[in-house]
Amino acid sequence: MAGAIAYISRDTDGVAWKKVLEAGLGPLDFRTLKGGLGNIDEIEVALAWKPQPGLLATFKNLKMIVSLGMGVDHLLADDKLPAGVPITRIMDDGLVGQMSEYAIFWALRHHRDIDKYEASQRAKVWKPEDFIDTIHRRIGVMGLGTIGQDTARKFAMLGFPTAGWSRTAKSIDGIETFHGADGFRSFLGRTDILIDVLPLTRDTRNLLDAAAFAALPKGAYFINMARGGHVVDADLLAALESGHVSGAALDVFNTEPLPADHPYWTHSKVHVTPHIAGATNPRTASPGVIENIKRLHSGQPLINRVDPKTGY
Amino acid sequence: MAGAIAYISRDTDGVAWKKVLEAGLGPLDFRTLKGGLGNIDEIEVALAWKPQPGLLATFKNLKMIVSLGMGVDHLLADDKLPAGVPITRIMDDGLVGQMSEYAIFWALRHHRDIDKYEASQRAKVWKPEDFIDTIHRRIGVMGLGTIGQDTARKFAMLGFPTAGWSRTAKSIDGIETFHGADGFRSFLGRTDILIDVLPLTRDTRNLLDAAAFAALPKGAYFINMARGGHVVDADLLAALESGHVSGAALDVFNTEPLPADHPYWTHSKVHVTPHIAGATNPRTASPGVIENIKRLHSGQPLINRVDPKTGY
Ligand SMILES: NC(=O)c1ccc[n+]([C@@H]2O[C@H](COP(=O)([O-])OP(=O)(O)OC[C@H]3O[C@@H](n4cnc5c(N)ncnc54)[C@H](OP(=O)(O)O)[C@@H]3O)[C@@H](O)[C@H]2O)c1
Ligand SMILES: NC(=O)c1ccc[n+]([C@@H]2O[C@H](COP(=O)([O-])OP(=O)(O)OC[C@H]3O[C@@H](n4cnc5c(N)ncnc54)[C@H](OP(=O)(O)O)[C@@H]3O)[C@@H](O)[C@H]2O)c1
Repeated sequence: MAGAIAYISRDTDGVAWKKVLEAGLGPLDFRTLKGGLGNIDEIEVALAWKPQPGLLATFKNLKMIVSLGMGVDHLLADDKLPAGVPITRIMDDGLVGQMSEYAIFWALRHHRDIDKYEASQRAKVWKPEDFIDTIHRRIGVMGLGTIGQDTARKFAMLGFPTAGWSRTAKSIDGIETFHGADGFRSFLGRTDILIDVLPLTRDTRNLLDAAAFAALPKGAYFINMARGGHVVDADLLAALESGHVSGAALDVFNTEPLPADHPYWTHSKVHVTPHIAGATNPRTASPGVIENIKRLHSGQPLINRVDPKTGY
Repeated sequence: MAGAIAYISRDTDGVAWKKVLEAGLGPLDFRTLKGGLGNIDEIEVALAWKPQPGLLATFKNLKMIVSLGMGVDHLLADDKLPAGVPITRIMDDGLVGQMSEYAIFWALRHHRDIDKYEASQRAKVWKPEDFIDTIHRRIGVMGLGTIGQDTARKFAMLGFPTAGWSRTAKSIDGIETFHGADGFRSFLGRTDILIDVLPLTRDTRNLLDAAAFAALPKGAYFINMARGGHVVDADLLAALESGHVSGAALDVFNTEPLPADHPYWTHSKVHVTPHIAGATNPRTASPGVIENIKRLHSGQPLINRVDPKTGY
């Protein structure tokens, strides 16, 4: 008999997940952190979002860990994560589409001078602004994975000159590509709107510091929909202060929820959203999880594996 | 010898147009309304934006009228327009792309609940909102011409179920199509975000009245980037008041500039922009005009013709 599936999240109750998984797999022994995990030796699969460090190590017969988010830093931060148990992550078309919407929304808001038009409306002033041709507004996407490629392609399709930056070399139709530490400065130097969609790893933590912001052209705009840990907040605030960075839309933060006294909340050049750029949607995320549970039971290789060594 | 080109606009000085046309055609006898038209019998081509009614009729040797905007209602409103002189309009890829950006920006703003997130930021409250799947947010584009098709295709590419409405039947990959008076109600009934990009004609004036707004699903959002004359303002205001229409982004108005005492300026559910959804860009608009001037001189049929009978 198949073992139990444990839903480990302090944010959501798992009802929607139970429903979509049972639709694909039939009745399941589905347990939740909130509802009680029962005999943890029976747990075979853990669906996890920000599990308490050490918890997964107590499941002696665990055979697969599934990250309920596309980012996996929340799992790999657990230094007691049971070695040898394969880690997979959801792949969620719905979430990917939402992420691209988020980036496009804030990029267009900056590109089309909505700040100025909002001010004109408040003053009841009819005042067309000068504009920059779309072909002269250079988009730069950090991270060319599942999300970054979708985002970059959509910007290119809207007519923006678009580049991406990744760890290993890539070739993508219609996108200028840069990679590695060597390509970082050139990538930033040609980027008017910087969109961060990198994973948080040893190598990307604090990547966006004073030197990185200084490498952007004056007046560049920054959109972070990846992880707050990429950003040295004091350096971003200084770049906004000097005007070198003209504004930022931030969905993710070094501490979440963003503390009430954090300067981002009230900063006139910063838009804050509460980590909603892409929300996991059981409807679109479940097919890959169902596939992997079947593969687990039939002994086939799992898909959507995460490599703990690279950290993503 | 070729005759003179007259640049008829009270908004702009024509310097940019002279430059791009001369780059394609060599030195021109280029005259402007602001700089003085000289002997008007020498005018062969008029590039016009909102010409004073009756003015074009005084150019006895006029051979072609070019609308400097993609909309031509500003020309056809002149009931002394010289019959028999062909009317053409610019075709401007840059403008078309801007129009789609405008629609996408406001649609995403509504779709992604930015109003609520802005309020949360002002209150320093971290509060993710429930969301509607992109596949359940139905976009409806009124007008499937040069602009409407570009806009509709881009929404479909972003994953929104997208429909369009036109005068004559159309078939467009990935877009549900409706047409004519018979298709209007069904089109509105399935549309959560209504985007107007119709020309202003006898048939479309006051098309968006109480009955049209009532035919939308409750909570629908309205984006007007076409012409203010399509809208019965009192009916839109009533639909906003009742909450049947949840909000509107308006770029065009029955009277422009929008009068300072108009309720739209201060309405909490209305975003006003000063007719900037798509700005004519001489760089991208000039190739078609250059082509038509060459065709005029070599006696070939003109492109981008406007039909005064249908009004677009
Ligand atoms: N805010 C939200 O709501 C939200 C929602 C979901 C996800 N996210 C974030 O988005 C991130 C990306 O997701 P994804 O699915 O697109 O990831 P992915 O498919 O794993 O792709 C990661 C990309 O980042 C690149 N990369 C990794 N380390 C790098 C380094 N040191 N230097 C340069 N490039 C590096 C990779 O390069 P290679 O291609 O060379 O391997 C790859 O292109 C997630 O990790 C998560 O943090 C945020
Ligand atoms: N706000 C701005 O900055 C801005 C800038 C540029 C243009 N505009 C506006 O955008 C409008 C559209 O431009 P375009 O270049 O896309 O126009 P277009 O190529 O002439 O296309 C017009 C479309 O509207 C449809 N249509 C016309 N009358 C109709 C009716 N009575 N019922 C249903 N459909 C009808 C046509 O149907 P068929 O396909 O069946 O002929 C066609 O699909 C312009 O006329 C102008 O008013 C606004």
